[in-house]
Amino acid sequence: MQRILGIDPGLASLGFGGLQLYHTPKGDRPQLLDFGIIQTQPKTPVGDRLQTIYDDLHALIDQIQPTLVGIEKLFFYRMGNTILVAQARGVILLVLNQRKLPVVEFTPAQVKQALTGYGNADKLDVQQAVARELELETIPRPDDAADALAVALATSFQIRG
Amino acid sequence: MQRILGIDPGLASLGFGGLQLYHTPKGDRPQLLDFGIIQTQPKTPVGDRLQTIYDDLHALIDQIQPTLVGIEKLFFYRMGNTILVAQARGVILLVLNQRKLPVVEFTPAQVKQALTGYGNADKLDVQQAVARELELETIPRPDDAADALAVALATSFQIRG
Repeated sequence: MQRILGIDPGLASLGFGGLQLYHTPKGDRPQLLDFGIIQTQPKTPVGDRLQTIYDDLHALIDQIQPTLVGIEKLFFYRMGNTILVAQARGVILLVLNQRKLPVVEFTPAQVKQALTGYGNADKLDVQQAVARELELETIPRPDDAADALAVALATSFQIRG
Repeated sequence: MQRILGIDPGLASLGFGGLQLYHTPKGDRPQLLDFGIIQTQPKTPVGDRLQTIYDDLHALIDQIQPTLVGIEKLFFYRMGNTILVAQARGVILLVLNQRKLPVVEFTPAQVKQALTGYGNADKLDVQQAVARELELETIPRPDDAADALAVALATSFQIRG
């Protein structure tokens, strides 16, 4: 059975969402496993924050046992922040490589396109599509976790039978 | 005895330079231990390249046995490249944290200032200062290794007795 981990990279808040696909007569359907964020504190030295991401992501993979991982590509939004997020993303890619997990990368526009059919959909449209696909009564919180579930769903669309 | 590792972060080519300080009647003097680059190939998947940096940097630390590490801060030069280098730098900071090494960070201008007295010195001036300080007859090659030795020397100036 395919189990998918979606990741929204970040240093202060790394979003994650896990789901598995189960077979139905109408095709594969996603089932929510878990979602949330890995948090690190801005006052903590960067090396320690990266170590937290390294340790917590390894533990998360132990828990979710993904067979496939989706992760957002970085785009430039704020200069200083982009370097911090890219450093965290380097550690994330290292961990995924250490666990020998296949990785699919998406731009934010590709995730929006996959979830709503529009590459420039707004955040709420995407979050509502996440809730609908996973049959949730409310939108997952915080935003970074909802974003990670959107990435996991976009990944699932590439392999659903 | 203080042993210093200087690092010029990169993904395709990570420069390193190791030196130790020995006492003389006129004060501490630097002695060259080793210098070079850790290389990864552009056609290799990024996760594998980051794993090479992780493994080789751990091995380098085993060899040099530094007591202090200096590393260059990133500045934005080309957009795509900056994200790749920042991802590599995240893995470097992770390794240094795993080895519990104290880290000093320098901007390129701070390294130039420390080596030549001018924050906007050109590359050749800095390289000649590196050769002079380490009593080398030729400038160390490649450039990334010379840059890393410059960072190591800038780090040494902060602690020399």
